[in-house]
Amino acid sequence: MLTAGLPPRLGAVPRRGEPVPALVAGASGPTPRPASQGGSPGQSVWIVSAVTGTIPPMRGLMQDYPLTIDAIFRHVEQHYGDGTIATAGPGGITRSTYAEWAERTRRLGGVLDTLGISADGRVGTFGWNSQRHLELYFAAPSTGRVLHTLNIRLFPEQLTYIANHAEDEVVFVDRTVLPLLWPLVDTMKTVRHVVVMDDGGDNEIPDDPRVSDYETLLAEASPVDFHVTDENSAASMCYTSGTTGNPKGVVYSHRSTWLHTMGVMAPNAFGLGIQDVAMPVVPMFHANAWGIAQAAPAAGASLVMPGSMMQPQALADLIVDEGVTFTAGVPTIWQGVLPHLAGRPHKLRDIGCGGSAVPRALSEAYREQVGLPILQAWGMTETHPVASSGVLPRRYADADDETKAAQRARAGTPFLGVEARIVDAETLEPQPWDDEATGELQVRGPWCAQDYYNPDAGVVLSTEDGWMRTGDVAAMDPYGSIRIADRTKDLIKSGGEWISSVDLENAIMSHPKVKEAAVVGVPHPKWDERPLACVVVKEGETMTEQEVLDHLRPQVAKWWMPDAVEFIDEVPKTSVGKFSKKDLRSRFAEFPARD
Amino acid sequence: MLTAGLPPRLGAVPRRGEPVPALVAGASGPTPRPASQGGSPGQSVWIVSAVTGTIPPMRGLMQDYPLTIDAIFRHVEQHYGDGTIATAGPGGITRSTYAEWAERTRRLGGVLDTLGISADGRVGTFGWNSQRHLELYFAAPSTGRVLHTLNIRLFPEQLTYIANHAEDEVVFVDRTVLPLLWPLVDTMKTVRHVVVMDDGGDNEIPDDPRVSDYETLLAEASPVDFHVTDENSAASMCYTSGTTGNPKGVVYSHRSTWLHTMGVMAPNAFGLGIQDVAMPVVPMFHANAWGIAQAAPAAGASLVMPGSMMQPQALADLIVDEGVTFTAGVPTIWQGVLPHLAGRPHKLRDIGCGGSAVPRALSEAYREQVGLPILQAWGMTETHPVASSGVLPRRYADADDETKAAQRARAGTPFLGVEARIVDAETLEPQPWDDEATGELQVRGPWCAQDYYNPDAGVVLSTEDGWMRTGDVAAMDPYGSIRIADRTKDLIKSGGEWISSVDLENAIMSHPKVKEAAVVGVPHPKWDERPLACVVVKEGETMTEQEVLDHLRPQVAKWWMPDAVEFIDEVPKTSVGKFSKKDLRSRFAEFPARD
Repeated sequence: MLTAGLPPRLGAVPRRGEPVPALVAGASGPTPRPASQGGSPGQSVWIVSAVTGTIPPMRGLMQDYPLTIDAIFRHVEQHYGDGTIATAGPGGITRSTYAEWAERTRRLGGVLDTLGISADGRVGTFGWNSQRHLELYFAAPSTGRVLHTLNIRLFPEQLTYIANHAEDEVVFVDRTVLPLLWPLVDTMKTVRHVVVMDDGGDNEIPDDPRVSDYETLLAEASPVDFHVTDENSAASMCYTSGTTGNPKGVVYSHRSTWLHTMGVMAPNAFGLGIQDVAMPVVPMFHANAWGIAQAAPAAGASLVMPGSMMQPQALADLIVDEGVTFTAGVPTIWQGVLPHLAGRPHKLRDIGCGGSAVPRALSEAYREQVGLPILQAWGMTETHPVASSGVLPRRYADADDETKAAQRARAGTPFLGVEARIVDAETLEPQPWDDEATGELQVRGPWCAQDYYNPDAGVVLSTEDGWMRTGDVAAMDPYGSIRIADRTKDLIKSGGEWISSVDLENAIMSHPKVKEAAVVGVPHPKWDERPLACVVVKEGETMTEQEVLDHLRPQVAKWWMPDAVEFIDEVPKTSVGKFSKKDLRSRFAEFPARD
Repeated sequence: MLTAGLPPRLGAVPRRGEPVPALVAGASGPTPRPASQGGSPGQSVWIVSAVTGTIPPMRGLMQDYPLTIDAIFRHVEQHYGDGTIATAGPGGITRSTYAEWAERTRRLGGVLDTLGISADGRVGTFGWNSQRHLELYFAAPSTGRVLHTLNIRLFPEQLTYIANHAEDEVVFVDRTVLPLLWPLVDTMKTVRHVVVMDDGGDNEIPDDPRVSDYETLLAEASPVDFHVTDENSAASMCYTSGTTGNPKGVVYSHRSTWLHTMGVMAPNAFGLGIQDVAMPVVPMFHANAWGIAQAAPAAGASLVMPGSMMQPQALADLIVDEGVTFTAGVPTIWQGVLPHLAGRPHKLRDIGCGGSAVPRALSEAYREQVGLPILQAWGMTETHPVASSGVLPRRYADADDETKAAQRARAGTPFLGVEARIVDAETLEPQPWDDEATGELQVRGPWCAQDYYNPDAGVVLSTEDGWMRTGDVAAMDPYGSIRIADRTKDLIKSGGEWISSVDLENAIMSHPKVKEAAVVGVPHPKWDERPLACVVVKEGETMTEQEVLDHLRPQVAKWWMPDAVEFIDEVPKTSVGKFSKKDLRSRFAEFPARD
């Protein structure tokens, strides 16, 4: 087979403006290259290598324009000044325009100077989705600093660890969550300033020289120019709250943020345009609000920020009252919002959902009661976070509802910019795309992480051939659509074979009496592990183990059938709202094995 | 005012994998930086400069994944294999899938090897919009070669000049246009191969050792691997057919193509997604088919290629029969198609239009007779080519039809990735965005050209501060929406003031009896220049000079009124279908001046 890579060439190609390499005497002598091809007038022409007989490949002649967040900022400032930002809070809705936001964001750059934050200092945030948080999202990276979003739902020890690990110099904190942060400030060694953003409520503000008020600082500051030149410099950090080991920091660059913004904006992803009103329910304090905090302004879409008003009724009211066209959040959010939204008039065109597998029954309930199914997206902190979506391929346009629902329940097709493969855990061989073979999902692309920030020994994110390990177990169909089988650590290993806890959960949750279900592996002397189903029954309903098993039997292989069903009050959740299987596993670690 | 740029720093930041700079003895000694921040294990840590006291800024930790066309190719190959390509031709419609296209494109890479094309050799094409042309669009750059689209409508001397200037090694030519190319082949000094793509008809194929058949070569070749690693290497070339001087070559890079593809795909541009069926009428032989040849496959949209079937009736039939949802072409195309499309059922959601100003009357006629107005886009070969569009900002959603029509007649809002300004021709000062001040439109961004390829002496594209000069005269409104006033060279200078020929043409063309109108400046002893209106009357209609002037008078300032109206049979067009004002100016150079 012929191969068509570039031929070996003479050292590195000179970059525009850099000196051209010294002449090497070649048998055929120098080959003239146009001045526009890298040589400056008066400098040597590029040459034919005596060794390879080749010349460096021709270069594009486009502008060296860096992909930076301040360029996105300017785009919003210049063209979408009349776009609106509505932020909900205990005292009602605060309204602003992108023009006002932009002026404040430039002032906020001045505040960071006033506070003496280092040139690439980490700027911590501890707050809800709000206009002020959006000011920080742009002011920190646009002045060369690094935005570091702290997850308000983490345990105190984790917060201390993360702030120290990232070396945060300042934390901007919403008044409504100040009591969660303030007791920890003395444990955060590098934090010199705490800036309180007053989002309502009456939490006491400590009388301490480190504490200042956001609006006061802003009023006193002068707006600054933004001009970041290196697209590969750090723009922001986000720590993953893994269930084992210390939290791990992902460092996004300006380039990766720019490209992820474009990726999220595309019609095969969230399809954000100037006609939209977007409401990110997914928090800005974790996983970048799935890129919506950058992509909505970049598209000129107006924003609705729920602030601390995260109750299902409040979210449903915002969707209806503010004319929201696109929103996104984790499954548990939409589970709660459904009864408050069903039957009401709205302008929604898409409801994005991810973070954990979207139960098919939930999506179908939305289709029936709200008029549109849920749009599943897949990704993780390490993929910025959005990497694929379940936008329905045209091949299923005329399919029956059953087929469409099955397609929508998939993580779906990777976006342009993300490549995916599945790799066998033991042989490390890429697996066929037949929707049956499973393996670890691995990805690569310009918004996939290469390394963690200063990781603990032994923590390795990338494979030797440059792919990112996701820790998810998946299959891919012949069109490369991803079906997540499970997290690697949540798979149940029974008799040398793997059982997908997610598949079992989806099957159980399709029972009308079931509110939530989580399946975990419990130790078994003969089979190694066996599945245990933990089921939460809907209010006012009662259910027997036999009902669950009868419902499951026609849907799964016999050896996948759970050995037992435990009825629990609720499934424990992680700080970001995912099922905490770790907690369930330890709770049922001593569960008596059955034959 | 505080400024917030990055501080001076110690030389260049090391790239990942490059050696860290040697230690410089600093007063404060070395500052440890994590290994994940650029240092390899065992190498020196980064250091505090004794001079600046700073350390290099923190870097992102995302993958070094190049933005290359072969990555777009893989995305299409892996995920959209069942998408279709329909190519029209004299013998009917040929149908294929992206899966078949991808396999053929890999084979075509093998053909380029077989023909001995250099590692970065220029691969000329001379043909219509077709599947084969799309194979060339991806195979040439994905093997490191440089695609060079030759405009089949150029004059013979221009074609010879361009092929020699670019040093084309091969030309792939459609059989239907072979008679235009073959007589020139001996004048193209570097062309060693002519590959005929048989798109129908019975043009004679020369018996010459340089000539081979596309399908025969493809059948004999083996598919190749694609792997381009440098996103700044050249991917394709396109020459602008200026009205003065030699044609000038623009060299697109892989990176610029990738980013333009994302830009065109966004909802504020053409909004291409997997649900679309796209038909580029704008030719692939000039200005990249406005990016649709890359963006439609990249989005998984199916393609309809008109081939040589460019007659208005044939285009209208393709739109209706093939369920086209998005199409794009120059105004004269849509002028011709209108009567054939009016009143027929269709699935169009947008009709893109550009290349020259879209007459408002044409857009309104489409709104009334086809059900949707025309979507104007602006750009030029030097901007890849699409830079802005008239997608209606939400602020006009509830405006009256008149206001909406006026907004749609603008070049509109630059895309994310393109920055624009207007600069006074004499003072070189940026002008205010008040929609009144005019000046040269200048742009910058990752898909704007920096230089021409080996330009003639004195041809300069960029300003000293790094903006690209467009040669268009424009105003911008307070939201940065662009209104093109004229090409610099088409402005009419009268008594020291400028008159926009485009504004006059639009006003005249809104008369129901007028088919086309072009206004040019003719010499005047007192006023320097005065406008002359050249009007083409619709078939079956008659018109007097007085009717034209009476129609115009309430619409424009008194001193803008043309001194005379000439009725002509048709407006001469350039090779790409634009009004050739140069021809009109020379025809009327001796026009008698009036007082």
